[in-house]
Amino acid sequence: MEFTVKQIAVLLGGEIQGSEEDKINKIAKIQEGEAGAISFLANPKYEKFIYETQSSAVLVNKTFVPKKDINTTLIVVEDPYSAFSTLLEEYQRLTSFSKKGIEQPSFIHEKATIGEEEYIGAFAYISENVSIGKNCRIYPQVFIGENVKIGDNVILYPGVKVLQNSVIGNYCTIHAGAVIGSPGFGFAPQKDGTYKDIPQIGNVVLEDHVNIGANTTIDCATTGSTIIESGVKLDNLIQIAHNVTIGKNTVMAAMTGVAGSTEIGENCMIGGQVAISGHGKIPNRTQIAGNSGVRGNFTEEGKTIIGSPAIDMKDFKRIFVVYKKLPDLLRKIQKLEKEYLNSQ
Amino acid sequence: MEFTVKQIAVLLGGEIQGSEEDKINKIAKIQEGEAGAISFLANPKYEKFIYETQSSAVLVNKTFVPKKDINTTLIVVEDPYSAFSTLLEEYQRLTSFSKKGIEQPSFIHEKATIGEEEYIGAFAYISENVSIGKNCRIYPQVFIGENVKIGDNVILYPGVKVLQNSVIGNYCTIHAGAVIGSPGFGFAPQKDGTYKDIPQIGNVVLEDHVNIGANTTIDCATTGSTIIESGVKLDNLIQIAHNVTIGKNTVMAAMTGVAGSTEIGENCMIGGQVAISGHGKIPNRTQIAGNSGVRGNFTEEGKTIIGSPAIDMKDFKRIFVVYKKLPDLLRKIQKLEKEYLNSQ
Amino acid sequence: MEFTVKQIAVLLGGEIQGSEEDKINKIAKIQEGEAGAISFLANPKYEKFIYETQSSAVLVNKTFVPKKDINTTLIVVEDPYSAFSTLLEEYQRLTSFSKKGIEQPSFIHEKATIGEEEYIGAFAYISENVSIGKNCRIYPQVFIGENVKIGDNVILYPGVKVLQNSVIGNYCTIHAGAVIGSPGFGFAPQKDGTYKDIPQIGNVVLEDHVNIGANTTIDCATTGSTIIESGVKLDNLIQIAHNVTIGKNTVMAAMTGVAGSTEIGENCMIGGQVAISGHGKIPNRTQIAGNSGVRGNFTEEGKTIIGSPAIDMKDFKRIFVVYKKLPDLLRKIQKLEKEYLNSQ
Repeated sequence: MEFTVKQIAVLLGGEIQGSEEDKINKIAKIQEGEAGAISFLANPKYEKFIYETQSSAVLVNKTFVPKKDINTTLIVVEDPYSAFSTLLEEYQRLTSFSKKGIEQPSFIHEKATIGEEEYIGAFAYISENVSIGKNCRIYPQVFIGENVKIGDNVILYPGVKVLQNSVIGNYCTIHAGAVIGSPGFGFAPQKDGTYKDIPQIGNVVLEDHVNIGANTTIDCATTGSTIIESGVKLDNLIQIAHNVTIGKNTVMAAMTGVAGSTEIGENCMIGGQVAISGHGKIPNRTQIAGNSGVRGNFTEEGKTIIGSPAIDMKDFKRIFVVYKKLPDLLRKIQKLEKEYLNSQ
Repeated sequence: MEFTVKQIAVLLGGEIQGSEEDKINKIAKIQEGEAGAISFLANPKYEKFIYETQSSAVLVNKTFVPKKDINTTLIVVEDPYSAFSTLLEEYQRLTSFSKKGIEQPSFIHEKATIGEEEYIGAFAYISENVSIGKNCRIYPQVFIGENVKIGDNVILYPGVKVLQNSVIGNYCTIHAGAVIGSPGFGFAPQKDGTYKDIPQIGNVVLEDHVNIGANTTIDCATTGSTIIESGVKLDNLIQIAHNVTIGKNTVMAAMTGVAGSTEIGENCMIGGQVAISGHGKIPNRTQIAGNSGVRGNFTEEGKTIIGSPAIDMKDFKRIFVVYKKLPDLLRKIQKLEKEYLNSQ
Repeated sequence: MEFTVKQIAVLLGGEIQGSEEDKINKIAKIQEGEAGAISFLANPKYEKFIYETQSSAVLVNKTFVPKKDINTTLIVVEDPYSAFSTLLEEYQRLTSFSKKGIEQPSFIHEKATIGEEEYIGAFAYISENVSIGKNCRIYPQVFIGENVKIGDNVILYPGVKVLQNSVIGNYCTIHAGAVIGSPGFGFAPQKDGTYKDIPQIGNVVLEDHVNIGANTTIDCATTGSTIIESGVKLDNLIQIAHNVTIGKNTVMAAMTGVAGSTEIGENCMIGGQVAISGHGKIPNRTQIAGNSGVRGNFTEEGKTIIGSPAIDMKDFKRIFVVYKKLPDLLRKIQKLEKEYLNSQ
């Protein structure tokens, strides 16, 4: 596939500064550019690369003013990152997955209902009373347990396991190896020191446009539902315990864990490898820095927190400056003590 | 299924305060109650909900004294949480899994031994010299490697992999995607900067009543065994490295990792996302707060530790109070220095 | 299998102190020794066991000088750990996996190319345009996506998923449940608070002699490649985000995560449960203590860092000593303040 700079500018509604007729046949990062490639510049940190890139064209912001000579063609757009994403989508559309039908051997229970335009890969297992909407892609080796309901346009990558009674909305994507609806971790301590299983009879509900990362696990509720609201994006190797609720459009980076019964608000941004304790509450639009440990309830919306236990980012920064000087502080105090003593 | 309050009280050995003949047909959390539901109140934090719950009945403790009017029927029991758990079990027994037999296609080596009353799902793979006890449930897409021994009443959820030579006791449950017995992470550094594989010829032993969470990984020993003693409960996405021992009835929340050759005592309670370093020792009944980093050996039993590196909980709390005041401390010191200087 | 001490000493190029003709038929840790076993002593921490071990022979270092009587036969070698590893390899060679051929049912696309001397297990799925070199072991339930290229002598353990366009070099080992090439986590925020998928059209490249642990996930690049250079060893449950590069011979312990576009140098040693932020740079030979949180760029090679945010190990240790004394420090300051006030 090959396009001219002009064709791309028209697609993206951009304005060309340079050669309109150059040919573009690949997409590359600005620092890895080569002849025939198109790149983008959004983060000012990468500006230095635009003066040396080999890419034939670069998408830039309207506010971009070059500080040196530029040897590539610029396509000026409102939002270069978003325009680049549109380009990737177009590329993906042209090269995309188009398999349909049911590969053999697969196992589909006679009481399961499958929609139209489906792809179901070999070694997939679909249990009794499952219903699957239309235009879904069920990759090989997927497991779908009893009574699971799946909407339209859902993608389950290889080896995904969706356990019994789970409900999955429309336009959800679940990446390879993720486990949805495994029984929650609940045990009642007995007098002799052993533990007794507490049956977990609830389920997991994913609303629409939810993304679940590879090898992520989401446990079913003890009773009721563990709920992932619409537009939530979870990265790889995340753990969501029983009876958690995650509000609309919250995004969570890899390896973060949320303990049981915690409610996370809408439009939160949660970094990677964060631990969030159980029975807590995280308000809407909270931002949590990666590698933090969050305990208890927070009440004010829109705060940024960090640390373990996590506190307000501004406080953390002020404290950290002094923390790094602790040996110096100790010396100062010892000096004062000594001087005070001598002065007596 | 529907029962009267009286039938449930008899089952649980409870005493009724209110209407004996009300019908119960579902189980719900107290804050999500509705007509026909039964709930429980154990944690005082949730007491406020008992005055407004729509549930038809609530299990409460003998010591519970209402502070306001209550509109629901109470069933007074010794331990409401445990009674609730009994109810859940009864519910699960009545709605439970009852498949038996071997689904096709599956792969069972002719030299494998399978017990009675088994369920083996499609696409399961059972290797040479495997022996499986009676009344086990082997879900679809499970892999069982050579020479693995499995006891009675074991459940292996979809996509579990039990690698060669592993030994699994009776009444063990392994959740979806868990990996038992993968080769430990051992490499010998070479003079040229590369690493040479150290073969891992040991195995993993799970004793009885062990629970392993979804996508958890337990490595086989270099030589000898990685041992998970009876009654241990491990949550999802946990990592247990080679040659670790975990003592009886220890519970560990999700995302915790234990590095090689560490011995963890009995009846410990270990929070989520804890990192425990290698070649260490954790005494019996140790409690470790979530998100802690534990280095080295501890000797005293029954301590609660927290932080990274983890220290005694009481010390941590005292230190944290001052830690949050560090900028203030710095100011005090600077003021003292200035005043001292001026006073000279 | 049984060997004499002499046969083993010849194999390892070691010198015998004791009985040459004793029979050896197993390998055990020095503290778990028994008659007929051979053990090794490398770490001085374990020296006490050599005086009481039941093992028939122990590999020791040339510099080892006993402090008490020893009842076992010694085999003196240059490097006991490496010699022990050679023994394990020999043991593994004699007991090793020897299956060849393609088990049924499996799914191999007619446009896939498979090398010689292959083992392909049942329920494995090999897509269109895959090419696999010679002498590979593809265990049951493995998924290999379209256009994947795999070199020679590669082992993919059960349930491994290698997604489309991934490239895997020679002598790579990928452990059970690992996911290679799942789409990176990229979403563009929209004005209404929702997120739009950014297609991830790049791939993952593993060079030669790479080890990937069980249930580890490595995301494909947005464009270009996520690169794991030759000799890299990654443990279980690790997350490598899109467009990361990991330099030659770097080893990383379990549960560590690397966020997007970060470059990690060669010969680094990274502990377990470390979080490394995105768009950063870690120089060659950096050592990172387990449970650290690494933010931003580091420039000097060969440093050891620890903490969250991670700082130089020497600084951390100095600070931690004072950190533990914070309540005491506060008291000193309050005393000085009071005394100063009284002295006015």
